[in-house]
Amino acid sequence: MYRAPVSEIAHTLKTVTGLGKAMDARKTGDLSEDLLDAILEEAGKFATDAIAPLSKIGDEQGTPLKDGVVTMPEGWGQLYKDWCEGGWNALTGPEAYGGQNLPMALQTAAFEMWNSGSLAFGIGPTLTIGAIEAINLHASDALKSIYLEKLVSGEWTGTMNLTEPQSGSDLNGLKSRAEPVGDGSYRIFGQKIYITYGEHDMTDNIVHLVLARLPDAPAGQRGISLFLVPKVLVNEDGSLGARNDVFCNGVEHKMGIHASPTCTMIYGDGKFGDEAGAIGWMVGEENRGLACMFTMMNNARLLVGIQGVAVAEAATQKAIAYANDRKQGRAEGYDGEGMAPIVHHPDVQRNLLTMRALTNATRAISYNCAFAIDRQEAPDSDHAFWGNRAALLTPIAKAFSTDVGVDVASIGIQVHGGMGYVEETGAAQYLRDARIAPIYEGTNGIQAIDLVTRKLPLEGGDAVRGYIAELKDIAEAVRGSNRPDLDGVADGLAAALDDMEATTEHLLACLENGDKASALAGATPYLRLFGLAAGATYLAASALHSGEAEQADRGAIARFAASNLTPETASLRRIVEGGAKPLLSAGELLKSA
Amino acid sequence: MYRAPVSEIAHTLKTVTGLGKAMDARKTGDLSEDLLDAILEEAGKFATDAIAPLSKIGDEQGTPLKDGVVTMPEGWGQLYKDWCEGGWNALTGPEAYGGQNLPMALQTAAFEMWNSGSLAFGIGPTLTIGAIEAINLHASDALKSIYLEKLVSGEWTGTMNLTEPQSGSDLNGLKSRAEPVGDGSYRIFGQKIYITYGEHDMTDNIVHLVLARLPDAPAGQRGISLFLVPKVLVNEDGSLGARNDVFCNGVEHKMGIHASPTCTMIYGDGKFGDEAGAIGWMVGEENRGLACMFTMMNNARLLVGIQGVAVAEAATQKAIAYANDRKQGRAEGYDGEGMAPIVHHPDVQRNLLTMRALTNATRAISYNCAFAIDRQEAPDSDHAFWGNRAALLTPIAKAFSTDVGVDVASIGIQVHGGMGYVEETGAAQYLRDARIAPIYEGTNGIQAIDLVTRKLPLEGGDAVRGYIAELKDIAEAVRGSNRPDLDGVADGLAAALDDMEATTEHLLACLENGDKASALAGATPYLRLFGLAAGATYLAASALHSGEAEQADRGAIARFAASNLTPETASLRRIVEGGAKPLLSAGELLKSA
Repeated sequence: MYRAPVSEIAHTLKTVTGLGKAMDARKTGDLSEDLLDAILEEAGKFATDAIAPLSKIGDEQGTPLKDGVVTMPEGWGQLYKDWCEGGWNALTGPEAYGGQNLPMALQTAAFEMWNSGSLAFGIGPTLTIGAIEAINLHASDALKSIYLEKLVSGEWTGTMNLTEPQSGSDLNGLKSRAEPVGDGSYRIFGQKIYITYGEHDMTDNIVHLVLARLPDAPAGQRGISLFLVPKVLVNEDGSLGARNDVFCNGVEHKMGIHASPTCTMIYGDGKFGDEAGAIGWMVGEENRGLACMFTMMNNARLLVGIQGVAVAEAATQKAIAYANDRKQGRAEGYDGEGMAPIVHHPDVQRNLLTMRALTNATRAISYNCAFAIDRQEAPDSDHAFWGNRAALLTPIAKAFSTDVGVDVASIGIQVHGGMGYVEETGAAQYLRDARIAPIYEGTNGIQAIDLVTRKLPLEGGDAVRGYIAELKDIAEAVRGSNRPDLDGVADGLAAALDDMEATTEHLLACLENGDKASALAGATPYLRLFGLAAGATYLAASALHSGEAEQADRGAIARFAASNLTPETASLRRIVEGGAKPLLSAGELLKSA
Repeated sequence: MYRAPVSEIAHTLKTVTGLGKAMDARKTGDLSEDLLDAILEEAGKFATDAIAPLSKIGDEQGTPLKDGVVTMPEGWGQLYKDWCEGGWNALTGPEAYGGQNLPMALQTAAFEMWNSGSLAFGIGPTLTIGAIEAINLHASDALKSIYLEKLVSGEWTGTMNLTEPQSGSDLNGLKSRAEPVGDGSYRIFGQKIYITYGEHDMTDNIVHLVLARLPDAPAGQRGISLFLVPKVLVNEDGSLGARNDVFCNGVEHKMGIHASPTCTMIYGDGKFGDEAGAIGWMVGEENRGLACMFTMMNNARLLVGIQGVAVAEAATQKAIAYANDRKQGRAEGYDGEGMAPIVHHPDVQRNLLTMRALTNATRAISYNCAFAIDRQEAPDSDHAFWGNRAALLTPIAKAFSTDVGVDVASIGIQVHGGMGYVEETGAAQYLRDARIAPIYEGTNGIQAIDLVTRKLPLEGGDAVRGYIAELKDIAEAVRGSNRPDLDGVADGLAAALDDMEATTEHLLACLENGDKASALAGATPYLRLFGLAAGATYLAASALHSGEAEQADRGAIARFAASNLTPETASLRRIVEGGAKPLLSAGELLKSA
């Protein structure tokens, strides 16, 4: 069973990101080290004691739909209520509406633990928090006063409604429409698919944020506006009124996250109300809906990234425990009687260390991304610098972490052997659950393209160059430490960071020379290279800043990563630099006549 | 929907393995090129028209157990009957018992297609065929005359009973026991788990091959014997008699291959018959049961390996079709209106080409392994040479192919985006099904250890050295061809084969120097390196021997592999050569106190 790794998480937050120094310099408001530790401890307890035990029942029961009503699995309604009552939904919410305005970095760490308990649970509040951000930044005061307090407390949940059957990664083709009523409200019509927690029975109301087109709006992305559409209309006194004309007419049967209802939502079908059309209100400006939605999507991307870390952590813990328990075969150096626990076999150690190192590496990257978002928003910081840093790390935090989540969960099954393939054990559920995260909130392919075509060119390339220089400083600090347990780490990191630098310049040159196709061809291997190099560097930083008690463990993980994981960057560099042409010419042959 | 790639399969068999030349030299008995093509065509039709359409219903209905009876999914009984009536179960069976004695290479190709239709279907006959081999090679004439004909025709199915709860990869701990009755028969007692098709309702009888210990047998593996235990006893006239004392008391709830019943079998519980103890007969010599079982396991490993190829092929076809159909985003060079089919995006092309190249590469390796098995058994061949070749390639065919099966199926989901995560589409089922293949018939970790510790040392290392030399000859032939569409391929292959050679010598030196732990630590990355280098070389060979019509396609795949896949060998080499020490010292920290 999952145990929240609170002290490892706190260590990562404090030493691998700048949060420790920021707290020391009292740049984090009320947040002290003691408060941070206390919050993490309690968040971890909730993950371990309350969420994790309900994960399997959620997987088994799913979220059946009957007559438009989605029934959540047994115990999930109470679980959500308890979670809200703990104040957990309000961690980063605006203080004016009952939120605690705590840092994103802390929230990210807490969400890691809750998602380790259950991805299907974690994704619901992830979307509510996104809705809170979008409404807080872009909606009118009138809308804020009606909806924000209840969203911040978690009494109501929020959703994001982007996708339509013909319009997923590309929103140009979006067809849902909004007709002005004349009193400031709109009637919304259309079908939305893949709406996470679009319908459920845990709260009295659900606040949908819906992309739709106004009449006569320009075609394409520049004609899309954002609307707030509650499931139940709210009376002037704040009480709930009539049902709005929106309902769920389908729940997907998915590979995993069965306890997260993925809904088809129908707006304006005339099922409810006297007149067809779901009533909604515009959020932000006309035809600027995508910009508003991206506000919430950026942070949501980080929180989906942390799902990858979360499932990797849970799978790693389970595999290590199993490998210490299960005995098969003889092993050199094992001095017990008979068969050795399989953790004694080097090949099993490779599996477990790969899991552990990749989990810790993606955690460090994701927390750094969260810290950058906090700094970007902090009053006394260099907003442009931290904004660029957050922008640069978001696709890595999302895509590298979620790829790792899938890989680590799959290795976890392998460590369990036949037991891993049997659902009873729970290892298989981790892989089934993990498999969504590289897809939703922008597929990992889209993240790689975003990284290469939008993020590398920030500040003419100087944003990423500055980041690489920082990583190189860490590698040099490792070298300077002369710690014997970090033998070879500085060399391994230096080679990986050289590969990162060379491929970065190569891709920037492709973009500059108008060879965008080659840059796109290299995007995915480049993203992985970036993640491996940065992640392994953070592992070394973590080891460098460890107290004596954990030094050996963290040093060993850093050394494993620098010798068994970062060598891959050399290959990825060759692929980025030399693979594009053969790829693009072979790609032609895939196209149907 | 899957379409059997008959001509690609035939081309691979004829040109990338030695089968074409062997047929030309009339070394393949009755098998001519025309006959080969005709059989492949019909086997492919059965896969496409009969098996594939029942895969989803098998996944949905599974194999419920009630009162010891397992009910197969709708249509599966008839499917199996039709398959047997087509003579497909008898392809390689001994002629004396109604078999067609055709080459393993042909059977492997046919099984690829049937498994592409459904892994859950293919695994049943895989085990029957293994049972036929073991009985034919090791059982008494009396047992053969009772059981073989019905097993060859498929009227009865066969199973392998190795695993017990405490005894999986390591059979030393096996506890099931066999007590001699005195009349040549034995009473078998014990519990076996994970027995594939241990119980089902498709045939009147099931023939279990069961590992058990005789009284006073030595401890460990040298005290294990093999027994034939029918579900229903057979009368002297061949008719079915009383039910034997064996029954299924559990069916696993698995991640995938739901239509393949994975059974817990209870022997000798006294549920059937007057006296407790399932009646069985020894196959092979006392205490030599493992050797007999390994006879069937080796070929079964190849046929499990082909499951990896099979699911990869099916997933690749599905993804390519989807990518040509689904439109999202704008793409450079797309001259249609509006959004482009996603196959136009370079990042999607990378996914699809990776799928296609790995699928074809593992196919070529597996067919080469099958061809070596055929040559090993052929009357006029160098048995030792081909036996070593088969031994060398079996772990690659099993492990590399099934790892590829998982990876390719996972990429297939990614290409489908949200549609891939929804079970309706079928992409998710491929991953759920594929995930068993790296586990059963010897986990891929065990395969890697087998490769390094048993296969590399064959002939003092000269078996693998000779193989690498053959691959280098192919690379040089590519260079000599000067074909512009293979530009760069020879260099890419040469680098990969140099990496293969260097790591081979490194591991042999480790073994020779008594540093077995380092060899074990490098086993898994070495196996992958071996697979990538050999597979990419075969892709080039396939391109080299193509007629004009397919030259461009096969050349492009070979070039993609040599530029975008084989670069990984450089990293794997560094990991094998330099990663063992950090791994082994970090591994210590994983062990519980």
